[in-house]
Amino acid sequence: MKRAWIAGLLVATLSAAPLAAMADEGMWTFDNFPSAAVKAKYGVTVDAPWLARVRGASARLSVGCSSSVVTGSGLVLTNHHCVRACAQQLSTAGTNYAEDGFSALKREDEKLCPGMVAEILDTITDVTPAINAATAGKNGGDFVKARDAAIGATEKQGCAGREALYRCQVIALYQGGQYKLYAYRKYSDVRLVFAPEGQTAFFGGDPDNFNFPRYDLDFSFLRLYENGKPAATPAHLTWRTAPPKDGEPIFVSGNPGSTQRLLTAEQLMTLRDQNLPETLLLFSELRGRLIRFGEESAEHERIANDLLFGIENSFKAIRGEEQALVDPALIAAKTKYDADLKAATQKDATLAATIGDPWGETAAVQPLRRALYKPYYFLEARAGLGSDLFHYARLLVRAGEERTKADHDRLPEYSDSKLALLEKQVTDAQPVYPELEQLTLEFWLSKLRENLTADAEGTKLFLGKESPETLAARLSKSKLADAAYRKQLWDGGKAAIAASDDPMIRFVLATDAASRAIRKDYEDKVTGPSDRAAERIARARFAVHGTSDYPDATFSLRLSYGAVEGWTDNGVTVTPFTYYGGLWQRATGQFPFNLAPKWQGAESKVNPNTVFDFVSTNDIIGGNSGSPAISARGEVVGAVFDGNIESLGGSFGFDGRVNRAVTVSTAAITEALKNVYANDRLVTELLAR
Amino acid sequence: MKRAWIAGLLVATLSAAPLAAMADEGMWTFDNFPSAAVKAKYGVTVDAPWLARVRGASARLSVGCSSSVVTGSGLVLTNHHCVRACAQQLSTAGTNYAEDGFSALKREDEKLCPGMVAEILDTITDVTPAINAATAGKNGGDFVKARDAAIGATEKQGCAGREALYRCQVIALYQGGQYKLYAYRKYSDVRLVFAPEGQTAFFGGDPDNFNFPRYDLDFSFLRLYENGKPAATPAHLTWRTAPPKDGEPIFVSGNPGSTQRLLTAEQLMTLRDQNLPETLLLFSELRGRLIRFGEESAEHERIANDLLFGIENSFKAIRGEEQALVDPALIAAKTKYDADLKAATQKDATLAATIGDPWGETAAVQPLRRALYKPYYFLEARAGLGSDLFHYARLLVRAGEERTKADHDRLPEYSDSKLALLEKQVTDAQPVYPELEQLTLEFWLSKLRENLTADAEGTKLFLGKESPETLAARLSKSKLADAAYRKQLWDGGKAAIAASDDPMIRFVLATDAASRAIRKDYEDKVTGPSDRAAERIARARFAVHGTSDYPDATFSLRLSYGAVEGWTDNGVTVTPFTYYGGLWQRATGQFPFNLAPKWQGAESKVNPNTVFDFVSTNDIIGGNSGSPAISARGEVVGAVFDGNIESLGGSFGFDGRVNRAVTVSTAAITEALKNVYANDRLVTELLAR
Repeated sequence: MKRAWIAGLLVATLSAAPLAAMADEGMWTFDNFPSAAVKAKYGVTVDAPWLARVRGASARLSVGCSSSVVTGSGLVLTNHHCVRACAQQLSTAGTNYAEDGFSALKREDEKLCPGMVAEILDTITDVTPAINAATAGKNGGDFVKARDAAIGATEKQGCAGREALYRCQVIALYQGGQYKLYAYRKYSDVRLVFAPEGQTAFFGGDPDNFNFPRYDLDFSFLRLYENGKPAATPAHLTWRTAPPKDGEPIFVSGNPGSTQRLLTAEQLMTLRDQNLPETLLLFSELRGRLIRFGEESAEHERIANDLLFGIENSFKAIRGEEQALVDPALIAAKTKYDADLKAATQKDATLAATIGDPWGETAAVQPLRRALYKPYYFLEARAGLGSDLFHYARLLVRAGEERTKADHDRLPEYSDSKLALLEKQVTDAQPVYPELEQLTLEFWLSKLRENLTADAEGTKLFLGKESPETLAARLSKSKLADAAYRKQLWDGGKAAIAASDDPMIRFVLATDAASRAIRKDYEDKVTGPSDRAAERIARARFAVHGTSDYPDATFSLRLSYGAVEGWTDNGVTVTPFTYYGGLWQRATGQFPFNLAPKWQGAESKVNPNTVFDFVSTNDIIGGNSGSPAISARGEVVGAVFDGNIESLGGSFGFDGRVNRAVTVSTAAITEALKNVYANDRLVTELLAR
Repeated sequence: MKRAWIAGLLVATLSAAPLAAMADEGMWTFDNFPSAAVKAKYGVTVDAPWLARVRGASARLSVGCSSSVVTGSGLVLTNHHCVRACAQQLSTAGTNYAEDGFSALKREDEKLCPGMVAEILDTITDVTPAINAATAGKNGGDFVKARDAAIGATEKQGCAGREALYRCQVIALYQGGQYKLYAYRKYSDVRLVFAPEGQTAFFGGDPDNFNFPRYDLDFSFLRLYENGKPAATPAHLTWRTAPPKDGEPIFVSGNPGSTQRLLTAEQLMTLRDQNLPETLLLFSELRGRLIRFGEESAEHERIANDLLFGIENSFKAIRGEEQALVDPALIAAKTKYDADLKAATQKDATLAATIGDPWGETAAVQPLRRALYKPYYFLEARAGLGSDLFHYARLLVRAGEERTKADHDRLPEYSDSKLALLEKQVTDAQPVYPELEQLTLEFWLSKLRENLTADAEGTKLFLGKESPETLAARLSKSKLADAAYRKQLWDGGKAAIAASDDPMIRFVLATDAASRAIRKDYEDKVTGPSDRAAERIARARFAVHGTSDYPDATFSLRLSYGAVEGWTDNGVTVTPFTYYGGLWQRATGQFPFNLAPKWQGAESKVNPNTVFDFVSTNDIIGGNSGSPAISARGEVVGAVFDGNIESLGGSFGFDGRVNRAVTVSTAAITEALKNVYANDRLVTELLAR
């Protein structure tokens, strides 16, 4: 069906109304929430204390997820798929927590999730003037370097003296129209408390993913620790066991990862014609390799599980985005929107002089972007693809090199403000699987050769006279699988790395200059000009539409509003709830429609009329996984775990008629903990008042 | 770079010149060859005797390839990749002719290629009036049925009384603007004589495929047999051992499979936005599964080899087509061409009344085509994907049913004129590999569910309560792997099939009505209206441009002309020849740049200056594989085995500046047979005068 927001785009410029006027649209920052509009539409008062309480209970997880604090002892609700990697890392050939579930019977059994950090937003400060001052008059790669150096300095200064407990991050909003310093209280000791069986959390598997009706208990619990003890978290949400009602207002507080709603038509066409199709083809083949790998043995299935889940989930999401972009009406509407904004800008001579023609500049960048895409992708941006060993090696090699430089001269991801998280991620112990490394490295190297061609300089440098298969076999023997060795290289820095005879370290040392060169080329010719133009487009939007709009998603804290509501598409009406009873009706006994053992005999143990999953009109996207669904009174009523298939075009716009967030209810979770898992410890903690 | 034929398209209507005027363009039928143009450009006389001789030496292979008769005893030159499947079928777990090569030391050792038929075109007869009379006034599915019935009847009548030695086939040319009856002399006993090692034929593998410079000995020899003896074939081409010269005129006689140069812009957009991307995604995942499968053991590598080769080859070809269509200039030029042709048609009131608005009708079909694409693809058109067992079962079930009907009431592929080839293909013995069946069936069924969704009626019917994995395991135990059982069911017909308890037969019996229903729906709503409109567009073209144009490729015999010539792209000039010496320079010792054992020490045995592969400006496409490259004097100078990467957009148009055919020279073949393979028997036969 046609997306309503395409029509909305056309209306927007003409009426000078914000894009969000037509529906429950918007991933709003906490310092610019449209409380008046929400009050008018839903009668709910979202005042400063309400916002502060919800903000203080919302935790961003470094695995790319959202979550909420739900008790005073640091208990955190998130999705099962957000702890799937942790559960797999904690497993061995003999235990499979990701598939069989995990339950700490007592606090001492709660287990550290390697590399995971939780961050709760504390303050927001506008730092736009400082960043703009640093970049004034700069262009291309110089602009990128100056901006990133100013960001690093601002972050370092913002958390100076409190680095152990806080992390400061500058968020570019409105594509650089604003820069805000977000200071987070951070928790670097996050432990797994409870996870249901993989099959219970992901019943229906990939076929049901992004669909509704749905029967997934996609939840799990983590706990924040401080000094080896559960953190005291008085600012938590209240656990509600009563299910939401049809039409009930729902707020979602979380970290939507990335949207492209402010891109120009030309940029969207590059996504449509190149970036998304290339990624889909790559993921399809990797998916095929992983599926067959997983069928070879139970152990292969176990170790490939998390990566395959991620690939299939991303594939479906990106496929939805691509399908949205193929609709010619979308590009036509964006083209008109761009032209109208440009025309409105040019009516004011002063404004026109300030803004210039960032649309034309953006269009001019696209051929370069297309030409550089493949070397940039395979040699730098996605080098190594899913290989942990390559990831570790590059991180260690680059950190070793960059840490010898002044902070403002480094690659930005190695600035002082980023080092604490990097160190934790590289030195926390976690299993590395040589057979899976062989698969991912071989895949990456074969696609590098295929896409760059066998005769390209980059291919010759990375492969030499080896084949992807033989080189991958050599590299997957790297000692970097050992956390102690990684710590030794991290601590030893550049000298220790230069002296290492590890094959993966040698490989990265031999190729890194080429990777850095293509990155610099890309920043000079693509990132710099694009970001510079985007800033001015943002200014044009502020000038024409005011600041009552919301920025694109950036994996930073946002609040969306909406209500429990089904939808109608092509004459078919989907009601907003599923109930426990439906689970047994949908179960076939065959994967992925089979039930975990504990659930096979549990039909009589739960109330068939308990609300299981539900949908609401909230505007969400990937990264929101694990976000609390919150009532008007600030109670948590569920954990958002998905969007419906119609919402996948949400990257480019929101259609309130059909886009829906999918949430597992606290009512269903409570009943499962009580009657199926008999987990009195958690039930007692959750229901304590 | 921009394709010249896009500009050509724009010129065409305005000047009323044929599309082919600008370059060595065209896949010409033998009854409409532009001899005058060739004489003018190359000074070569292509007269009726020349054409008759070349036609009589050109053999179409039922595996989708071309070939030429090169001695008086039925010896046929084609590509290695055209006999790869045959060589694999003749192999066992202990012998691998596809990889290690095959050489019959004496005639008695030449081995039957299962299911293979060679066909040499004898006569061409215009049957347009008869087909048109049968379809007059009919539309939609009725049109398709009437046309196909008339075609079947025409074919049956055309070969009446000589069916044992001849096959008649009606070819729809100019998208139905003409119908011609092609009568072929057929050879149903085709035997493998010689094949080099897989690594010699496909040196450089997938990375070098569709590239040049190239070092592939992609040739092999078959022999036509009659009554158990080598066929007498006096009308053969003469084997030339002298290499072609730069600029030398070259003719290619073969069967280009399919081009879409006459489609409307709207049809091309559907290919661009749906058919090609969907196919690429599917092939990518299957490729990934097959690659991993092949890595599991030498035997898995052996049995997956031919299917993986085919998938990778198709993937690269389709990817090239998709890339051509993504160029907005192509659709814009086609749109203008369509509009100009329509406008020219409408200037003449009588013509306008006859033609109507087939462009508008074609556009109106596209939304239906898109809506029906997935069920039609997965349940009917490509059901089973690569599964031999499903292919056999459907063929037997449908043949059993259709043969109880009058000829004109059958599905057209089961008309009397088609049965002989079908029977040979289904009853010839060839190995079926259960592990590979499991892989392909599981893949097909999982993609069926993914694309149609788990809740679709089609998914429920095909899968029932089984999963793709369990259903595939059950079906891959089918007895249809046994040729004797297939023969029993073919001979026993409908009753024997109804009584069969074979799981694959039962599966097809249970699902075939649904497959036929979606096919009928598709023919009613898509094929019928599209083909009906295409006929009238063809008439408009004839009226405006005359009949001096060539039709789209249809895997029927065509002749293209051109010359040995390199090309220049983005400032890089590629010379037209490679030489033996270059092979050892390119070899790295690692797959796919490794040499077969016989070649590792052979550098001193061959002349490094012998022309190995060469390129020419001939207009070819998939299906031309194995075609003879022919000199002005009618000698064979090579076997065409590829196009360069620039030629992949050739499906939609020909750019004479950069599109090149790639050929392995008879000079190189002769030298290899003499000095590396020491095959005196073949050398003597080839050089006999």
